[in-house]
Amino acid sequence: MNAPPFSEEEKRGVYRAIYERRDIRSQFLPKPIPPAVLARILDAAHHAPSVGFMQPWDFIVIEDTRIRRAIHENFERANQRASDLYKGARRDSYDRMKLAGILDAPMNLCITCDRERNTGHGLGRQTDPATDLYSTVCAVQNLWLAARAEALGVGWVSILDLAELKTLLEIPDRHTVVAYLCVGYVSEFRPAPELEENGWERRQSLSALVHFDRWGAHDEQRSMGLATGDV
Amino acid sequence: MNAPPFSEEEKRGVYRAIYERRDIRSQFLPKPIPPAVLARILDAAHHAPSVGFMQPWDFIVIEDTRIRRAIHENFERANQRASDLYKGARRDSYDRMKLAGILDAPMNLCITCDRERNTGHGLGRQTDPATDLYSTVCAVQNLWLAARAEALGVGWVSILDLAELKTLLEIPDRHTVVAYLCVGYVSEFRPAPELEENGWERRQSLSALVHFDRWGAHDEQRSMGLATGDV
Repeated sequence: MNAPPFSEEEKRGVYRAIYERRDIRSQFLPKPIPPAVLARILDAAHHAPSVGFMQPWDFIVIEDTRIRRAIHENFERANQRASDLYKGARRDSYDRMKLAGILDAPMNLCITCDRERNTGHGLGRQTDPATDLYSTVCAVQNLWLAARAEALGVGWVSILDLAELKTLLEIPDRHTVVAYLCVGYVSEFRPAPELEENGWERRQSLSALVHFDRWGAHDEQRSMGLATGDV
Repeated sequence: MNAPPFSEEEKRGVYRAIYERRDIRSQFLPKPIPPAVLARILDAAHHAPSVGFMQPWDFIVIEDTRIRRAIHENFERANQRASDLYKGARRDSYDRMKLAGILDAPMNLCITCDRERNTGHGLGRQTDPATDLYSTVCAVQNLWLAARAEALGVGWVSILDLAELKTLLEIPDRHTVVAYLCVGYVSEFRPAPELEENGWERRQSLSALVHFDRWGAHDEQRSMGLATGDV
């Protein structure tokens, strides 16, 4: 009855997906995504945990070039406004980065959260109204990891005017856009995140982020083990 | 240079973690979690995607029985208030469910989001201020899937007075509690979600949740393929 333990290779698959997943902006290939592969990654998303089994998500699969072009223009405007907030070398660095592959990827995916869906009958939602949004993010992350196993790259574009995006895609008011993703095969998965490779930011030390029993209680010895957590 | 494609078994590992992951409340065993395994699942969380490589998360590992007892009491009060919102058969059904394994699991994990962390220099955060919370949820889901591969169960307890929890764990104001998790080995992983098994809610049809190019545009033929997405 009980499922067998994961084999070493199955376990390695899980950790590979986690460590080799990248946020793709520059490496998309136009190669189309087979319907069976799309079905598998969407079904993986649909099997995410959700508060009270609410399943508050919807998925809009966007391939139409005219629509993607309009969304790309939305991104360009939002990105210009974002760039204006930086000064000097930081701005030069910002402007040099490619931050979205909306037109390069053959498919975009908009993932929304229905804030009023009655599925789940409100179980678990009274104390934190954001839990439905969080469930939807779990669906995004499931999809992202399944995509990596399928050799598909995913890039999350957060630099978008979301109100304008909702109008364009005709999304009803009560649904919140949680994620706008570019999805496609890639020329390569880089060995490290692009923002780390290009010096925008460094990976933080895990041990500084782990507390024991209460906030601020670090444990030198226990944290030592954490430093060697790479698999 | 490029990583090799996932083998069939590695791929199966990813989908097994996604489909066999459960939200555990009742099946925890007291068996302790080896430090190396804890290190692996925390490091998996730390390798989640984050907006602008912000890495806004912190992890509080809670084993102290006195603290867990206080949090369990917090849960009991919040759960009583939640139960009072249901009537008749729905309430009976609610009251019959065990919704948290705070004291049964040997370890609890509180995962927080620093709303003011400057890591990432704000990249990608101007258009949607919730993206730092979403990044933290990606860390939760990474941890949940890595835990499943390690045969560890995880249960997300959302029925908690979060203000009280922050006081108890001495979490500074600017950090938001995103998830409170119970973690431990289990007697079994049930074949389906508990809320589905006990009739609280049913899994929705994926094809009804997939739109093509714009909201409400369903595609009979394309959706047929989605119905058979189970791996």
